[in-house]
Amino acid sequence: MKAIALLGGPQEEWPQEIAADIKKARKEGALIMASDRGSLFLLQLGIVPDVALGDYDSLSFEEREKVEKKVQDMRYSNPIKDFTDSEMLFYAAFVDYQVENLTIYGATGGRLDHFLVNLYAVLKPPFNRFAEKIKFIDKQNLIRFFKEGKHIIAYNAAYKYLGIGTLTPVQNFYIKNARYDLAKTDLSAPTMYSSNEYLEGQNIEIGCRAGTLIVINSRDKK
Amino acid sequence: MKAIALLGGPQEEWPQEIAADIKKARKEGALIMASDRGSLFLLQLGIVPDVALGDYDSLSFEEREKVEKKVQDMRYSNPIKDFTDSEMLFYAAFVDYQVENLTIYGATGGRLDHFLVNLYAVLKPPFNRFAEKIKFIDKQNLIRFFKEGKHIIAYNAAYKYLGIGTLTPVQNFYIKNARYDLAKTDLSAPTMYSSNEYLEGQNIEIGCRAGTLIVINSRDKK
Repeated sequence: MKAIALLGGPQEEWPQEIAADIKKARKEGALIMASDRGSLFLLQLGIVPDVALGDYDSLSFEEREKVEKKVQDMRYSNPIKDFTDSEMLFYAAFVDYQVENLTIYGATGGRLDHFLVNLYAVLKPPFNRFAEKIKFIDKQNLIRFFKEGKHIIAYNAAYKYLGIGTLTPVQNFYIKNARYDLAKTDLSAPTMYSSNEYLEGQNIEIGCRAGTLIVINSRDKK
Repeated sequence: MKAIALLGGPQEEWPQEIAADIKKARKEGALIMASDRGSLFLLQLGIVPDVALGDYDSLSFEEREKVEKKVQDMRYSNPIKDFTDSEMLFYAAFVDYQVENLTIYGATGGRLDHFLVNLYAVLKPPFNRFAEKIKFIDKQNLIRFFKEGKHIIAYNAAYKYLGIGTLTPVQNFYIKNARYDLAKTDLSAPTMYSSNEYLEGQNIEIGCRAGTLIVINSRDKK
């Protein structure tokens, strides 16, 4: 089973086809998840999430009641918590529901502490092993994560630019068959190589011996 | 001398008072810098940057000519480069112009590979020593960086939320006098503690023995 989650980030950052994409995924059997204001956003799109989580403090009493009436699996976090909302989401998706992969909308824009908490949740020890099953999508960006080993980044005509970087110290990080290749390098600090490109429809190869890589396909605003 | 820079990020992310703030800074003797499309944006605001840099590939021939006619210190980067545009900016500001600090607008929103390249430039060995002199500002966020030692995060009534995190592995990282404190901790992966808050107008203390910390003051959208 696949999963899709909508977080509470601003609607201006959503991809245009988000409602259609989530409805299509549900028809194909995907688990629909939401955190905080994302639950309300989904109801407004006519989609009842299967799982909702968060402390819901961004919702009014009436809004929260509306969500609680509709959603089967409601989970509550508290401000002093061992898990952030993103980590609760990963736990629900990968441990409880054993989904194959998780596509996350609404993680970008607005408050940057929220963006970094979402991004860095992928690095946390209990969830880092699921890193390659997680992606973030907004209207201009597709973000994926890769761990040690060799990986093929398939050509994707929908995005003009490609940024490949590291979120942790890495060993033997390399990029092959891209416009700007990188020979095997050890990096002690996170580093982003942005504005790279595919070569005439070709796949790109990346890899490292240890660490977590980030790959961002991006495009100009339409 | 202080410096202000405008990068090429989307205008929707700028703080409302950006033009007035930059004009005021110039009157007080600040160096005005811009990279890529930021140069054109500044001219449109009626401000001629002192220094412009980038590969200018986002500008049309006419736009570029307009910038070149006005700006005294023009610097050109090329796509295959040792320095990214952010690194060129740091070099010009801190090495060539020896500025005391650098405030950067236009670094957020839009392409996230651009945001991370800007953020991670602060970690690069030749520039990391200037980290505490650099801040990023957009309409919802104020981002600052801190290195080893003890630091006071002064109360700031303009922002409701506070996120404190790490961009690198850290040792002895702690948060004191905040709503959610953190005892001294070693973290091997970057971690964000978001949605923290000041306690009734009090300053917060943070520190670490090694590594680079990120502090994000943020607020809801107006």
